[in-house]
Amino acid sequence: MDMKSFTCDCLTAIRQKAPLVHNITNFVVMNSSANILLALGASPVMAHARNEVEDMASLASAVVLNIGTLDDLWVESMILAGQSANRKGIPVVLDPVGAGATQLRTKAARRIMSECRVDVIRGNASEVLSLWDADVTTKGVESSFSLSNNVADSAVRIAQVNKIVVAISGVEDCITDGSSTYRVKNGHALMTKVTGIGCGLSAVTAAFCSVKPDALLQAVTAAFGFYGLCGEISGGVTGKPGTFFTSFLDTLYAAGTDEIMESIRIDGPF
Amino acid sequence: MDMKSFTCDCLTAIRQKAPLVHNITNFVVMNSSANILLALGASPVMAHARNEVEDMASLASAVVLNIGTLDDLWVESMILAGQSANRKGIPVVLDPVGAGATQLRTKAARRIMSECRVDVIRGNASEVLSLWDADVTTKGVESSFSLSNNVADSAVRIAQVNKIVVAISGVEDCITDGSSTYRVKNGHALMTKVTGIGCGLSAVTAAFCSVKPDALLQAVTAAFGFYGLCGEISGGVTGKPGTFFTSFLDTLYAAGTDEIMESIRIDGPF
Amino acid sequence: MDMKSFTCDCLTAIRQKAPLVHNITNFVVMNSSANILLALGASPVMAHARNEVEDMASLASAVVLNIGTLDDLWVESMILAGQSANRKGIPVVLDPVGAGATQLRTKAARRIMSECRVDVIRGNASEVLSLWDADVTTKGVESSFSLSNNVADSAVRIAQVNKIVVAISGVEDCITDGSSTYRVKNGHALMTKVTGIGCGLSAVTAAFCSVKPDALLQAVTAAFGFYGLCGEISGGVTGKPGTFFTSFLDTLYAAGTDEIMESIRIDGPF
Repeated sequence: MDMKSFTCDCLTAIRQKAPLVHNITNFVVMNSSANILLALGASPVMAHARNEVEDMASLASAVVLNIGTLDDLWVESMILAGQSANRKGIPVVLDPVGAGATQLRTKAARRIMSECRVDVIRGNASEVLSLWDADVTTKGVESSFSLSNNVADSAVRIAQVNKIVVAISGVEDCITDGSSTYRVKNGHALMTKVTGIGCGLSAVTAAFCSVKPDALLQAVTAAFGFYGLCGEISGGVTGKPGTFFTSFLDTLYAAGTDEIMESIRIDGPF
Repeated sequence: MDMKSFTCDCLTAIRQKAPLVHNITNFVVMNSSANILLALGASPVMAHARNEVEDMASLASAVVLNIGTLDDLWVESMILAGQSANRKGIPVVLDPVGAGATQLRTKAARRIMSECRVDVIRGNASEVLSLWDADVTTKGVESSFSLSNNVADSAVRIAQVNKIVVAISGVEDCITDGSSTYRVKNGHALMTKVTGIGCGLSAVTAAFCSVKPDALLQAVTAAFGFYGLCGEISGGVTGKPGTFFTSFLDTLYAAGTDEIMESIRIDGPF
Repeated sequence: MDMKSFTCDCLTAIRQKAPLVHNITNFVVMNSSANILLALGASPVMAHARNEVEDMASLASAVVLNIGTLDDLWVESMILAGQSANRKGIPVVLDPVGAGATQLRTKAARRIMSECRVDVIRGNASEVLSLWDADVTTKGVESSFSLSNNVADSAVRIAQVNKIVVAISGVEDCITDGSSTYRVKNGHALMTKVTGIGCGLSAVTAAFCSVKPDALLQAVTAAFGFYGLCGEISGGVTGKPGTFFTSFLDTLYAAGTDEIMESIRIDGPF
């Protein structure tokens, strides 16, 4: 599969269909995730009430479960939304924000994965690995280590055992379904200096998955590629975080086929 | 009444008095609504605790009840705040975000309207009409249809029966109290590509109402005109959503009499 | 102590260590406070669940307790986080948003101060004074009066009696530990036209305190000086609030030793 053309296809489909992405996400990024999805061309909705999430998920084309700023009630709602999405057959993306930092977060992410089917898990290396390795810890919501060959090997095993797509963000991203693995080299250092960029990628990943539900590994990879590319373009504007984020929304809205064909850097499948 | 001069009067009064607008609103837009109100010249406060909202509403000059990201506890607080505002005699604006998408939202909006007096309801066409017509559905938080003559007729009937101002946002806005109707033609397509622009209009509507409590229909219309005008000016800057929102706050702050007299486009009353 | 050099030292230490600042803060500013801390060079985390805050505070280098948009459950969490910070010996900064406006807020701030050790209280004049003087009231979340000599005298007495650093924001800021007092003259009028600027200063204050835990009075003063200086620089860009905030994040990220040595205006100690 030509990943450049595939990425273009995904983007075109999102902009045509404006898929509804239901987010149960953290308070810090609700606004930025909604703006990122709107700029991309998708249609965001945020809803978390226990007596609403099944209805809302059943209207959506994809569901994002993000455990930043969580509490016990929200975990219940995430499970109900995930199960509703499973019944409808739409993709579920889990962002285990801060897993490995506190027991509440690590356990919540594990519980969500055990009580509904998660299709894609997206996080930084320590967040993702902490869910399977009790020795891995996270510094607040930042990864405590970088992507290495060991991390990539762990990601492959986790994907195989759990039959999910594992997508780890880092200087170089690693996306694997356990059989095939892609590496994405797009991105910019300023993406770590603005809050909600990782969470926004989880939302964008869900939008890409919604238009390619039968090719989730490639859809996630395409999402990472396009998102990182938009980061690169925006990082070149002033090199500072305030203007970076403004420009990032502009670029998600305006970038298209030309930028993708010219500058996306995806290696694989391995 | 000359709506251009009236709009100028409203804006001048807001900038002189800095009316306190108490918002019980959704998590997605709390930041953007506060910034929109501050840029306009009003003074925002957000407070939702059951044991605080009556106190806070009693200090305010207007109250906004916005049901995005709601749950049952928040509905209780909204009713208490609305009743407190009713006792004080200050305007209450309801924004039924997502009504028509889920039962929770449709029922919550109806319950709020039955348990306190709402002066103005502001939403998109399907949100507003779903409150009176069970066949109307909403796509997440986006309208499922545009403003047509049928919609305008429904708005007039709803305003008559409920003795409220009904204000429907769209490519062309429709504001009616059941006797008279205004149409506002200002606006820009990018206003739908940034989250919280509609919710921000509800907050701005409350600020305008607070300075003209005896002319609510005209105050709401003036709010729509000025807001849409600021959107138009900002939409022309780069045509992209990130810079649009930054410029929108700048324009709400800086635009004044000259821009209103020259470019506001209000038709009516009909 | 040379406050210019000391401010440079603080900033360098924050950028080197990226201290984890645990915020229990209000919904309006979670995003902006996170972005302000990231731009500064610190590492923010937001967590409020009762069964998580002790764990998270124990990982942090400083804790911020901010009572905007509070409810009773959040007060419990703030106390638990504060006590956890006390056990670890890291600084606790309290921002009593809206104290003096409603009983809930005034009482919550007092209760937090009685059940855990607060090292620094940062607010506007009426918020801070309302905690000790029942006659002081606050307009929503804006101060009802300016910093006067009377206010400064009250701040000194409050600091002495409570053995804390009292830091009052205004056109001119006043920071005192009851023995020594500093005045900071940096700042810009647009800082009151964007939401979350005061709350962001509380977060930045915590970051500065985290790298100078043995010189809290000076650390708080340095935080006010640098923050106000960044406001001044950004206020000069367009003089409008949207571009101001974007530029403010850019300036927090890019300003350094040169700007501090040239333009910081701190008087004292008195």
